[in-house]
Amino acid sequence: MNAPASLNHLLPQITLRTVPQALLDALKTRFGDQFSAAMAVREQHGRDESAFTVPPPSAVVFAQSTQDVADAVKLCAQYKVPVIPFGVGSSLEGHLLAVQGGISLDVSRMNQVLSIQSDDLTVTVQPGVTRKQLNEAVKSTGLFFPIDPGADATIGGMSATRASGTNAVRYGTMRENVLALEVVTASGDIIRTGTRAKKSSAGYDLTRLMVGSEGTLGVITEVTVKLYPLPEAVMAATCSFGSLADAVNTTIQLIQLGVPIARCELLDANTIRMVNAHSKLTLREGAMLLMEFHGSPAGVKEQVETVQEIAAEFGGQTFEWAETPEERTKLWTARHNAYFAGVQSRPGCKAITTDTCVPISHLADALLDSVTEAQEAGIPYFLVGHVGDGNFHMGYLIDPDNPEERETAERLNTQLVQRALQLGGTCTGEHGVGLHKQGFLLEETGNGAVDMMRTLKRALDPDNILNPGKIFSL
Amino acid sequence: MNAPASLNHLLPQITLRTVPQALLDALKTRFGDQFSAAMAVREQHGRDESAFTVPPPSAVVFAQSTQDVADAVKLCAQYKVPVIPFGVGSSLEGHLLAVQGGISLDVSRMNQVLSIQSDDLTVTVQPGVTRKQLNEAVKSTGLFFPIDPGADATIGGMSATRASGTNAVRYGTMRENVLALEVVTASGDIIRTGTRAKKSSAGYDLTRLMVGSEGTLGVITEVTVKLYPLPEAVMAATCSFGSLADAVNTTIQLIQLGVPIARCELLDANTIRMVNAHSKLTLREGAMLLMEFHGSPAGVKEQVETVQEIAAEFGGQTFEWAETPEERTKLWTARHNAYFAGVQSRPGCKAITTDTCVPISHLADALLDSVTEAQEAGIPYFLVGHVGDGNFHMGYLIDPDNPEERETAERLNTQLVQRALQLGGTCTGEHGVGLHKQGFLLEETGNGAVDMMRTLKRALDPDNILNPGKIFSL
Repeated sequence: MNAPASLNHLLPQITLRTVPQALLDALKTRFGDQFSAAMAVREQHGRDESAFTVPPPSAVVFAQSTQDVADAVKLCAQYKVPVIPFGVGSSLEGHLLAVQGGISLDVSRMNQVLSIQSDDLTVTVQPGVTRKQLNEAVKSTGLFFPIDPGADATIGGMSATRASGTNAVRYGTMRENVLALEVVTASGDIIRTGTRAKKSSAGYDLTRLMVGSEGTLGVITEVTVKLYPLPEAVMAATCSFGSLADAVNTTIQLIQLGVPIARCELLDANTIRMVNAHSKLTLREGAMLLMEFHGSPAGVKEQVETVQEIAAEFGGQTFEWAETPEERTKLWTARHNAYFAGVQSRPGCKAITTDTCVPISHLADALLDSVTEAQEAGIPYFLVGHVGDGNFHMGYLIDPDNPEERETAERLNTQLVQRALQLGGTCTGEHGVGLHKQGFLLEETGNGAVDMMRTLKRALDPDNILNPGKIFSL
Repeated sequence: MNAPASLNHLLPQITLRTVPQALLDALKTRFGDQFSAAMAVREQHGRDESAFTVPPPSAVVFAQSTQDVADAVKLCAQYKVPVIPFGVGSSLEGHLLAVQGGISLDVSRMNQVLSIQSDDLTVTVQPGVTRKQLNEAVKSTGLFFPIDPGADATIGGMSATRASGTNAVRYGTMRENVLALEVVTASGDIIRTGTRAKKSSAGYDLTRLMVGSEGTLGVITEVTVKLYPLPEAVMAATCSFGSLADAVNTTIQLIQLGVPIARCELLDANTIRMVNAHSKLTLREGAMLLMEFHGSPAGVKEQVETVQEIAAEFGGQTFEWAETPEERTKLWTARHNAYFAGVQSRPGCKAITTDTCVPISHLADALLDSVTEAQEAGIPYFLVGHVGDGNFHMGYLIDPDNPEERETAERLNTQLVQRALQLGGTCTGEHGVGLHKQGFLLEETGNGAVDMMRTLKRALDPDNILNPGKIFSL
């Protein structure tokens, strides 16, 4: 198996494609104030949370409607120029970067909640609606949208990267929660995939082909997702363990027993320290599970009792409860800020994040060895995990100007991913492939599957204009 | 909108493609006893539970391994001859019929449970394993596979049609439960899609592209599915109502409240009569919900109390309990045999089945008007429904030799499907498109989406050899 391509190896192979002045003029004419070629705007659309630096797109179009998207794509198609969808820029894998040049298509102004169908537990939104905005909009219905990747990402971006996050262990990922899409194709046509019916056997599952396609097969212009009744009772607790292994083994056992836990997150002692410093908390500095339980009062009580029993077997401390909604919000905000807490712990550093997911029985093998390796390498790191799903992230906190540290981080990442693959896991649980994981994708699925992806891409986007250079090379 | 193509309109357009003797000879040489051109075998592979009659395939290959499948497909590809995967022949939509001629590829002998990964709640099987066989094989682990389309279908066939059935309201469909596949492509290559990780963002979702593709994009040779812990407590009950509307409205409300009911099935009085006669039962002859509750003892008690309260509001009778596993089995067997009970109620008849699924709030509109129309048309019918999902089936019991009855049934079906589509639903909740629903698919998704499906098909199967003529015309 080949070692994965790091961006350093990848970038020199990429040629920026020409963006003719005629296209820029045509876009300016069509979009007026919704078009910008100002360097500040281009630069803002030329970076995300990844550790890559590439030239910005040649211009940015701010779409306000599906027709805007269709017209922008049609113009780019006419000149065979790349078009890169942009939401809020929270991607971690370089999805937004114009690695072959082109136009950034910003859909953040398409931020209307189009229709709340509370009687059907569904809602239809434009792609620029963020998950927090969505939950605010549906609050009065007694329903909520559980998918929570941490960042206040857009529903369009979350669909495009098949995002998940803390609640996925109970409610599934975007794969399970997107019912239907409106999509602008590479030729600028507008299609609809799926209906609001909960299930369907009506032909190819175009919805799920688009979910996770990272903007390479179409631009998402409308999304219908499932909502869930707000649980009658919610309880959140932390539990500290004497070792990381004990916390992980508690998780494995509760999943194997089928406890319908809503959130089951892991932080190690090192990361708790960072979070305490960043969020001014006093969490006990040890391996810790952060858990949330949803259900009826009796159901939640039952879940808590079961998990407490399991945790006690592995030496877990008594649960500490976040009693009020405010305390819960504080706890989960601290968890969501772990990434920033990590980055802040080493001023000037860049985080190289990893994102594997393994079958639950292999979680201890995958996670513990990776932590040991990081510690042995002496590189600062943080560790967070949606461990109920077998998914965890390490972030190696490197000095970006120190090539040796970058190399060490890349080596650790490679070891971590290859271990996950050997254990039957995946190279990305929720961040997507983007630029960084193309070699790993090949290792994971083999040439045959990636060739099939390429065939699909060539069929749906023959001129390779939709977010080219992502997921695989053509 | 055009009226959907009935088979009568469809068949004359189809030309049987030539199956050269050289291919038959080559298959005979390669497969020996695993090859048959005997008319009885061909005929057995040339019919399913649909109401269509077409010439049988030219021969049948009984694959015993993935390599057998790959070799058979390669030989057919060489001669550009259709190859039609075959499991147990329980399709209701003509999926198995050699409408363009060709070779039936029977995978029923590929019936090994390859690996039970009970610690991960997953199992990997060959495609010919049936759902009952699978549950027998995992019984000792305390886990079960919930997807239950009624027929003892193969896991391969269930994957190919995106099947679901009675438990889907709680556990999802094959869409949510297939983790990974091994697939033989149109060129005879073997690829793997997905891993055993519970979630992944690693490239295009080839697994879900294959699930529901009805054998038109690849032949499934291995399936990894999720398992679930057997619930600690299971309770099943029936509840009779004064009207169909009351039963439907009870269902709508319990779903809107988020009750995690495991099964929620509807039969009308007319169908109960048929079931009683067929299964020698004495179920009360009224609109009836058949329900099953899974969970902890306390959780089940809570669910039951909630549903009883709702049912009482709609005039539901006291629940009648199936107390023992044997009684539950009897009840669900009777439910599963409703199709056969219907057919038996009119000797010599054929059932024209329908299969729409609508957003739950529209279930009453969709279902009640369809029943009224059938009653007004004076055609015998049965009605069953996985109503918790908004999915129901009517079966019109027609005299196959009476063209007028067939026409009436087709008209009723068309009205029923178009009503469902107008209500935001789908033309098939779980049976698939096959031959009969191609016009409806077009109405449902529009030309753009079906054109995209055609583009995918042409890209992955340029010679159109994989189960041609299904889902859409090329």
